[in-house]
Amino acid sequence: MKYRIEKDTLGEIKVPENKLWGAQTERSKNNFKIGTAASMPIEVIKAFGYLKKAAAYTNTESKILSLEKRDLISKVCDEIIEEKLNDHFPLVIWQTGSGTQSNMNVNEVIANRAQLLSGMQIGEDPILKANDDVNKSQSSNDTFPTAMHISAFMMLVEKTIPAIENLSTTFQEKSETFKDIVKIGRTHLMDATPLTLGQEFSGYTQLLKNGLKTLKNSLNSLSELALGGTAVGTGLNTPKNYDTVVAKYISKFTGYPFITAPNKFEALSAHNAIVESHAALKQLAISLNKIANDIRMLASGPRSGIGELLLPENEPGSSIMPGKVNPTQCEALTMVCAQVMGNDVAITIGATQGHYELNVFKPMIIANFLQSAQLLGDACNSFNENCVRGIEPNLKRINELVNNSLMLVTALNTKIGYYKAAEIAQTAHKNNTTLKVEALRLGYITAEEFDNWVKPEDMI
Amino acid sequence: MKYRIEKDTLGEIKVPENKLWGAQTERSKNNFKIGTAASMPIEVIKAFGYLKKAAAYTNTESKILSLEKRDLISKVCDEIIEEKLNDHFPLVIWQTGSGTQSNMNVNEVIANRAQLLSGMQIGEDPILKANDDVNKSQSSNDTFPTAMHISAFMMLVEKTIPAIENLSTTFQEKSETFKDIVKIGRTHLMDATPLTLGQEFSGYTQLLKNGLKTLKNSLNSLSELALGGTAVGTGLNTPKNYDTVVAKYISKFTGYPFITAPNKFEALSAHNAIVESHAALKQLAISLNKIANDIRMLASGPRSGIGELLLPENEPGSSIMPGKVNPTQCEALTMVCAQVMGNDVAITIGATQGHYELNVFKPMIIANFLQSAQLLGDACNSFNENCVRGIEPNLKRINELVNNSLMLVTALNTKIGYYKAAEIAQTAHKNNTTLKVEALRLGYITAEEFDNWVKPEDMI
Amino acid sequence: MKYRIEKDTLGEIKVPENKLWGAQTERSKNNFKIGTAASMPIEVIKAFGYLKKAAAYTNTESKILSLEKRDLISKVCDEIIEEKLNDHFPLVIWQTGSGTQSNMNVNEVIANRAQLLSGMQIGEDPILKANDDVNKSQSSNDTFPTAMHISAFMMLVEKTIPAIENLSTTFQEKSETFKDIVKIGRTHLMDATPLTLGQEFSGYTQLLKNGLKTLKNSLNSLSELALGGTAVGTGLNTPKNYDTVVAKYISKFTGYPFITAPNKFEALSAHNAIVESHAALKQLAISLNKIANDIRMLASGPRSGIGELLLPENEPGSSIMPGKVNPTQCEALTMVCAQVMGNDVAITIGATQGHYELNVFKPMIIANFLQSAQLLGDACNSFNENCVRGIEPNLKRINELVNNSLMLVTALNTKIGYYKAAEIAQTAHKNNTTLKVEALRLGYITAEEFDNWVKPEDMI
Amino acid sequence: MKYRIEKDTLGEIKVPENKLWGAQTERSKNNFKIGTAASMPIEVIKAFGYLKKAAAYTNTESKILSLEKRDLISKVCDEIIEEKLNDHFPLVIWQTGSGTQSNMNVNEVIANRAQLLSGMQIGEDPILKANDDVNKSQSSNDTFPTAMHISAFMMLVEKTIPAIENLSTTFQEKSETFKDIVKIGRTHLMDATPLTLGQEFSGYTQLLKNGLKTLKNSLNSLSELALGGTAVGTGLNTPKNYDTVVAKYISKFTGYPFITAPNKFEALSAHNAIVESHAALKQLAISLNKIANDIRMLASGPRSGIGELLLPENEPGSSIMPGKVNPTQCEALTMVCAQVMGNDVAITIGATQGHYELNVFKPMIIANFLQSAQLLGDACNSFNENCVRGIEPNLKRINELVNNSLMLVTALNTKIGYYKAAEIAQTAHKNNTTLKVEALRLGYITAEEFDNWVKPEDMI
Repeated sequence: MKYRIEKDTLGEIKVPENKLWGAQTERSKNNFKIGTAASMPIEVIKAFGYLKKAAAYTNTESKILSLEKRDLISKVCDEIIEEKLNDHFPLVIWQTGSGTQSNMNVNEVIANRAQLLSGMQIGEDPILKANDDVNKSQSSNDTFPTAMHISAFMMLVEKTIPAIENLSTTFQEKSETFKDIVKIGRTHLMDATPLTLGQEFSGYTQLLKNGLKTLKNSLNSLSELALGGTAVGTGLNTPKNYDTVVAKYISKFTGYPFITAPNKFEALSAHNAIVESHAALKQLAISLNKIANDIRMLASGPRSGIGELLLPENEPGSSIMPGKVNPTQCEALTMVCAQVMGNDVAITIGATQGHYELNVFKPMIIANFLQSAQLLGDACNSFNENCVRGIEPNLKRINELVNNSLMLVTALNTKIGYYKAAEIAQTAHKNNTTLKVEALRLGYITAEEFDNWVKPEDMI
Repeated sequence: MKYRIEKDTLGEIKVPENKLWGAQTERSKNNFKIGTAASMPIEVIKAFGYLKKAAAYTNTESKILSLEKRDLISKVCDEIIEEKLNDHFPLVIWQTGSGTQSNMNVNEVIANRAQLLSGMQIGEDPILKANDDVNKSQSSNDTFPTAMHISAFMMLVEKTIPAIENLSTTFQEKSETFKDIVKIGRTHLMDATPLTLGQEFSGYTQLLKNGLKTLKNSLNSLSELALGGTAVGTGLNTPKNYDTVVAKYISKFTGYPFITAPNKFEALSAHNAIVESHAALKQLAISLNKIANDIRMLASGPRSGIGELLLPENEPGSSIMPGKVNPTQCEALTMVCAQVMGNDVAITIGATQGHYELNVFKPMIIANFLQSAQLLGDACNSFNENCVRGIEPNLKRINELVNNSLMLVTALNTKIGYYKAAEIAQTAHKNNTTLKVEALRLGYITAEEFDNWVKPEDMI
Repeated sequence: MKYRIEKDTLGEIKVPENKLWGAQTERSKNNFKIGTAASMPIEVIKAFGYLKKAAAYTNTESKILSLEKRDLISKVCDEIIEEKLNDHFPLVIWQTGSGTQSNMNVNEVIANRAQLLSGMQIGEDPILKANDDVNKSQSSNDTFPTAMHISAFMMLVEKTIPAIENLSTTFQEKSETFKDIVKIGRTHLMDATPLTLGQEFSGYTQLLKNGLKTLKNSLNSLSELALGGTAVGTGLNTPKNYDTVVAKYISKFTGYPFITAPNKFEALSAHNAIVESHAALKQLAISLNKIANDIRMLASGPRSGIGELLLPENEPGSSIMPGKVNPTQCEALTMVCAQVMGNDVAITIGATQGHYELNVFKPMIIANFLQSAQLLGDACNSFNENCVRGIEPNLKRINELVNNSLMLVTALNTKIGYYKAAEIAQTAHKNNTTLKVEALRLGYITAEEFDNWVKPEDMI
Repeated sequence: MKYRIEKDTLGEIKVPENKLWGAQTERSKNNFKIGTAASMPIEVIKAFGYLKKAAAYTNTESKILSLEKRDLISKVCDEIIEEKLNDHFPLVIWQTGSGTQSNMNVNEVIANRAQLLSGMQIGEDPILKANDDVNKSQSSNDTFPTAMHISAFMMLVEKTIPAIENLSTTFQEKSETFKDIVKIGRTHLMDATPLTLGQEFSGYTQLLKNGLKTLKNSLNSLSELALGGTAVGTGLNTPKNYDTVVAKYISKFTGYPFITAPNKFEALSAHNAIVESHAALKQLAISLNKIANDIRMLASGPRSGIGELLLPENEPGSSIMPGKVNPTQCEALTMVCAQVMGNDVAITIGATQGHYELNVFKPMIIANFLQSAQLLGDACNSFNENCVRGIEPNLKRINELVNNSLMLVTALNTKIGYYKAAEIAQTAHKNNTTLKVEALRLGYITAEEFDNWVKPEDMI
């Protein structure tokens, strides 16, 4: 491999010739050989593309950056956003806790790429300086949390929310399709009074709606950007109104309603918005876990389980048991849910330990957030398309189970009181007979009354 | 001890004569000797008081309960709400997961107390039947989650939120008082550029504001009540419009804007609102942990630490080190924060495992919620009154530390560029001299320029 | 209420006349009104009884405490151990993070009670000084973690471990009783190849055995005591060999094999042993959750569920559905499990944040530990006695389900290969017929072969 | 792209021509587009290499597989172990919860690769059948948990444990080097009595030793293998003694002491060993977090913090503050610790929800385990090499801080009692003087006594 020499305030270092990064990136590569299989999420790098471009525009507007430099920076940022330079961002998540090295990675790549775009060689007198031009009016301490918010916001609105909404819509449709299918209800896993399958599915829709409401609420918090706080929140070395203008540019370039954060000290030293938004993801994970669990229990069998639902058969289920088909989409989804709940704790612990003016668990926090948001989105799409849309009721089984149930006796409470009703149910259970047989034998009601009063379809 | 005989559908059982509970409560006492030091939170019992009263009014309005019975029920409910009957609610948290036994405990106490209020003996033909009258139009499955929401809502608005608001106000006031005190900033725990102590405290205010916003958002979700869903969410055995009317009565009796939940299947089988609201408590715990941590680090010393803040001296700090005073309020608060974060996981796990039409982790979930809400409220009050209000700056120390710092060099970035500024700082660090000495020695700026450009008070 | 005046290094303070505590306890009561419903666990106070007595004996042996003082201290400690003085320990968990105030509470009560035992008045020249005599050769920083280990160790060996062992024994016995009951296995909640009910229960025994092994392993770590480290671990102000001798006395007085910790700096500044031991409790909670879940699913029904097991009917299950009986012991246990998993996170967070020479999350950590250990013990006893011992198989149902299952086809893999076997199973599923019908129709085997090869009882 | 047709029991499907996988792998790729950036960890695939080879040897030994087939399987397994076939294992973590599809992926690749090694085309009559030959005497349900244990065990002994041992050794060495450096102790973050820097570091060594003991204990549990249980734990379709023999072969091929699990029902339906072992990783994470936190606080400054330690300067610390150097290795490590604690919750939740004969959170569980084990190993190496080895004491600062401290007064407790000592310390604090000045002024001791009694070097 061929190398060139790059330099920073600590001295010289060799960098692979075909890479655009500079000295600080290379140092970070050497100093942090931790979990090298996973890099800083590309969504964070792209968010840096938006914010570096916006900073350049704002600096030019404030007359502290030339139009030429702005356009060069902007051009490279567009390449970053289009993912053309992905190979030049090699750094891992487990680096400095402020993400300084990823910020410098972006600064270095922009400076070096601009050099090439200008027809010059890297190493010649630089047309853009990484710290003084590209990073102008910025610090890692405000750019990195800004990139966190941009990438989190965009992942949610472009991936997670649509996926959950689609799933919710499917449940809504199923709920209508199944609205007349009367089935047994189950509480404590035990037979209870009936409801319709449509009602059951309407609960799933509501669960997702509630979670989506919380998640969308959190977008407001995520829309607030730290940029303009620079090193400690005071905005040192920024021109006047920089923070509001740069937020406007970010909003313009991304198409999303970003604004400047009301208090930059909070925005650097803590991660409230991420914590709030991830809690909403966790809330959705809790609901999705419940839904997926219910569905696989309702579909259990095919012969020795509950068997009320039929799931699509997507693949052979077993390497040893021929003909077995399993609720694998439910399994993938519930594994994702467990991961999201674990990630919530990782984020909680990281967010708890911010010290003084800066929280230094930033890369870990955003990596967990983006993983959760993406996995939930992906898993909801997969669950929706490969499972929920194809769910069919097993009507024969549903009818058997509801008509057989002793809990239909509840309809008699208002007629003969709880105690006599209990006596009927308990006797039928003991004698393994039907409610009607025992109701008559005990002499509490007539056959006609029984038939009029105990109708599953009237109990929903 | 003297006993009387009570009876339920499983048969007879002895109950202490001087207690108002009945057979099912007694059975639960015997069957669940688990963690007997702690009972079902009294807030839940009081919430049952409100809801049983509201149910009675609604039943009477629907003409399925006599005015006399309504008034009797109502009278006992008022006694419950006024905590006059606390000794009659002996059940533990670790009982049936639907809280059925606590619902029956309330039903039994109301029936038996009504008997006495009517001048009759317990055991005589009952004037109120626990299941048929007191529990009319209800199930444990909708009453218990309703009591969860009522008690959670009331704890938040009466204890937690005011306490956090008071603390936030103190930080706001301190922030103004300290607005001209320039101090060193710290990022990565290392010296950084200056800010004012007021700015630092303004970050704390913002942290609490953000958390309060999320917490107050969750009140809407908590205001939705399951009552009217009865056994599985269908509302079996309730009169028409029961759910909306009963919510109106609860709203009237409590003075808070409760409404009926839009989907009862969700309201019984999951605990979204509790999950959402506790996540907001966790968010606040994360912020409070950060704040308390900062404050004790800033107050560390008195001679060999940071020493920028002086905390009230509330008690001798050590049984062996004479004269020691410790940041004990910060410690109590951070312990509470850790507990809240743990409780969040307990709630998460419980909420995850709802099966079919009913989640059966209800008592555990609400006990954790109420503990978190109360502890956070108590701890914020204590922290506010016994610590934050009395915080004073150690001006001498603050001045020493800010003037000594090498990071003031950052002001020179925009004058001579990042690289030369770094050279000045590094040389001063190596030689253990001042920035000014090295700036002049290196010849990058004049003494006059230095004095004009490097002013902590201009860097905030 | 009548008061007397007590005094500490911060001055005078009024204390209720009928209480034995002194100034520092009173101050703590006033300064920490947080979660006042729960006090420092009495097990911690009793552990202080053991260690204060042991310290007195060791001091006397080292000739720095008179025999008379030793015997006075010892006498009061015995009263504390016998829980005769419980009313004099009013402090909450949420106090100073070192537990200093509870240590001083003990010191004060011992000094004041000794005064009375000596026939003198509190307020007269004290016969024992709280700091100089009772706390001699001690600091809160080494006594409190010592009390943590003593109380944790004793709770485990006296409550938790026996309860889990008893439960494990019941599963072992059931496993033998059920060893010939062939039933269907279920993987992915779907019908799989058969096993015996005894084999299924043997897995539960093994789960508990594994957890018990980990838990018992942790007793070694808990047996190591911090006492002798005093303020920061150096053992300042202790006589020679104090640490090993005092551990010997604690061992003697408690009857358990306590030893001195090999490194006191670790023992004060971190809580490894508690973390390790609670992780074992969490491991057991995970297993118990799985077991309780399986049992309630296997017992679900009675008519519209799996219904293979019959659980004891301990109480009426529903306030609205007459005759319903629920798996309430499983519910109490799984709620406890969720709590233990949450507590694990609270302990984790507290243990993570030790600073320098002292971890100051001690009261929270031990309160969570003791709650988990006690709840698991109680819940296992309750589950064992009120549920597991009474479990009966529903043989009729078990037979129906296993004979009906398509997964018996797996026995044909080694005869005709996976693919043909799959074809038989799939066809039978599609046609809703039996394996035998389709095996013959497809011509892969003869009726005789089928009967010889496909026998559930040979597949276990 | 060119394709060929592959087939399974659900029918035909197109597979990329240049890939060795078959129909089931392709189906999984299509059905689980979830988190596609990360694949099933390669360590799991390699573990499958060992176990498939061992199964083949055992089958041949039992005379149910020909020597030729065994050698073919063995040859491909060696290629898998040497990571030559990595491109042929495309499946994600978020698939079926039993890992069936990864097991089939391995079976398919072995069968197809064997075809090529035999000079035949894929699609011709197969020399090895994926289900009948490669998977002979196996099920996904026992192979996947076996691969989990093998990969976890090997990661621990080859990566994690050596890394932590190396770090522990460095602390041990530093502890000896620093054994005579007397410094101030800190409790509650406040000045306390002195200790040596060596003693402080000895606590870190002990912390790691304790964690390593717990971790190594867990290797016993991980060494127990599920293989031989097949579908539900009964060992259906395995020859006699298969389980013990196959474990012996795995032990031989890996060089590690694997044995067969004592109870296969437990081994399939739960993940005790992984839970136990990951808890040990979490315990280490807790300790490492404390250590890294202490080190960065002790190194804080350089001028306005504690400043007792000097860390290696590995990279420029700030993009805006010139000359800043940060404790970045501590930050990477504490981020890893937070991740491990989060992963512990994900594993806990997954392990909790095993149903009946099979836990179906397997891929998630092992992915989290391996991530934790690898990250901790990597981070300890990085922390050791780039930080701890280069730590130097700042002797000047250390001396200043210890000599200045008021807590040296503790040495007077045993001379003049706690109360007078407290008076001296409090007066010196109030007057901002020294202990000696006030001790003399108060007349409690002479100058000579003070000098004899108050010596930091005698207080350790």
